[in-house]
Amino acid sequence: MTKSKSTEIASLGEFGLIDRLTSRLKRRNPSTLMGAGDDAAIIDLGEEVMLLTTDMLTEGIDFDLSYFPLKHLGYKSIVRGVNDILAMNGQPTQVVVALGVSAKISVEALDELYEGMETAAEELGVDIVGGDTTASMNGLIITITATGRAKKEDVVYRSGAKEHDLICITSNLGAAYMGLHLLEREKRVLKDVENPEPKFSGYEYLLERYLKPRARRGVLDALREEGIRPTSMIDLSDGLASDLRQICHKSQCGARIYLERIPIARQTSELAEEMHIDPVIAALNGGEDHELLFTVPLDMQEKIMRLGLVDVIGHITREESGVVLVTPDGEGIALKAQAFDR
Amino acid sequence: MTKSKSTEIASLGEFGLIDRLTSRLKRRNPSTLMGAGDDAAIIDLGEEVMLLTTDMLTEGIDFDLSYFPLKHLGYKSIVRGVNDILAMNGQPTQVVVALGVSAKISVEALDELYEGMETAAEELGVDIVGGDTTASMNGLIITITATGRAKKEDVVYRSGAKEHDLICITSNLGAAYMGLHLLEREKRVLKDVENPEPKFSGYEYLLERYLKPRARRGVLDALREEGIRPTSMIDLSDGLASDLRQICHKSQCGARIYLERIPIARQTSELAEEMHIDPVIAALNGGEDHELLFTVPLDMQEKIMRLGLVDVIGHITREESGVVLVTPDGEGIALKAQAFDR
Repeated sequence: MTKSKSTEIASLGEFGLIDRLTSRLKRRNPSTLMGAGDDAAIIDLGEEVMLLTTDMLTEGIDFDLSYFPLKHLGYKSIVRGVNDILAMNGQPTQVVVALGVSAKISVEALDELYEGMETAAEELGVDIVGGDTTASMNGLIITITATGRAKKEDVVYRSGAKEHDLICITSNLGAAYMGLHLLEREKRVLKDVENPEPKFSGYEYLLERYLKPRARRGVLDALREEGIRPTSMIDLSDGLASDLRQICHKSQCGARIYLERIPIARQTSELAEEMHIDPVIAALNGGEDHELLFTVPLDMQEKIMRLGLVDVIGHITREESGVVLVTPDGEGIALKAQAFDR
Repeated sequence: MTKSKSTEIASLGEFGLIDRLTSRLKRRNPSTLMGAGDDAAIIDLGEEVMLLTTDMLTEGIDFDLSYFPLKHLGYKSIVRGVNDILAMNGQPTQVVVALGVSAKISVEALDELYEGMETAAEELGVDIVGGDTTASMNGLIITITATGRAKKEDVVYRSGAKEHDLICITSNLGAAYMGLHLLEREKRVLKDVENPEPKFSGYEYLLERYLKPRARRGVLDALREEGIRPTSMIDLSDGLASDLRQICHKSQCGARIYLERIPIARQTSELAEEMHIDPVIAALNGGEDHELLFTVPLDMQEKIMRLGLVDVIGHITREESGVVLVTPDGEGIALKAQAFDR
């Protein structure tokens, strides 16, 4: 199957695989305003556009059913899908669900999964309008495809950041990553224990951030009310370093973010210390935060500060300055994304 | 995970699982005209609607990479997705692709998959507008989500069949099923052979029908030109028996189809005989035909016959008559769908 020349996917690097696969794709329908390359595709509806995005979660990679309750998994999968619509500044509306189901999954298990999905749908005001259930040889697979609507002029792209823009995030970072590490540790420690009682006390917030992330529809509504329109935006799923580099890559700009301004929750720092992990690495590269990273014009500084819903962690620079993390002593460190691993 | 009460999915029967899972889903957006229950969901756009459908294929269940060329697999996955839009009488427009990729898949293999997808997209006039690539622990997974447009009054549902309507299909049946059997046989026979040379001679048509099914966009265009509007329609994916029962279930009607009118290709009969399979079973229950099954009013009989593009295999009856296959000697056999197995 792999023929004579065989290239490992990892070797293509951060932006390589998607660019390579999508570069051959043509547009034939005038309604296709934008294809791959942002959080969602854009389909012309006249005054409005429809946003369309798809996201696959596979057992063993994206979740471990030995500690991931199905209700939460359903909830999180909807949040992940809808977040990509929010990251384009769209109003999420409909979702379709494709499931690959292995023999070990019972009807009651699927009920729980759907219950969690419907809870998230209720909170986010979206409708689950159908799907496909197929058999899977190896584990549970969930693909969520989400749609949303936006006025054309309201759509926010990854590519719109301008020099001097402020870089904002909607919550502290690294908590989901530490929640995952905690779950993995307890699984490891209690592997051969008959009635395992995992120790999560004091770290409930981290578990919640990993198992049940909240979509930030409310923050976007508040920005809209205040007349603040982001110049660029992305869903924080791969980690701040990688996602900020995406914004800079698409906007042809650089960035300076300040280490002491990156919010890290107390539980995140505490568990990181306990597990000998650098909390800054968790915040920069952990991923799965499912918060929003966006930029606003510098003259919005006062407004956005007064709103009190986001943290301003730095600003956009010229492309040649690169993407830089500034330490408290003023040193600038070039931010590298992690190796492509998914 | 399965708790105290554990119900096997198979026990819910033919229409049970989807009905159970989707019965709890609410509609919150006025733009949601129809959710689960037909080939695609329907989203209100004003005069037009957008159709939305998702379809997952998993390695080991839906395809075997040891004999399924990736180019064909890409092609077929797009056809499958787009067929659900056609089965609602919509014009397919955009597609998004979510891939789960195991470590054994090289970049060149993904290139081939995308090449096949783009070939199908070109033939069907749709745009691949993005997607998601994630890691998979176990095998390749492909989820295709397709969208399309239609005028509201043009949408054809599974539920519109009326007594006396004619039942039509767009090609002979059972060929894909026999193609799959041929591939499986040669794989089995040549399992331990060093340089295997599978014998496909004389059965190329069956392989093509399984590996590279064609979407019937052309037939629908011809019907439209002739002013023939189907009263109900479904994508023939689970087999004629099951899919006709779906139409009857949704339309609250019965059906009589005539055995001698069900078209079966010569190669299908020949291989079936060689492999001791009843060709009628292949045609009724084989599945994967990816043709269209639809009904038209009785007064369209002459028009549809003159068109010469479809076979009329029977007619719609009252619900209490059931779904019946009439043998050449006039005997009526109640059509049962196969057990739910996916």
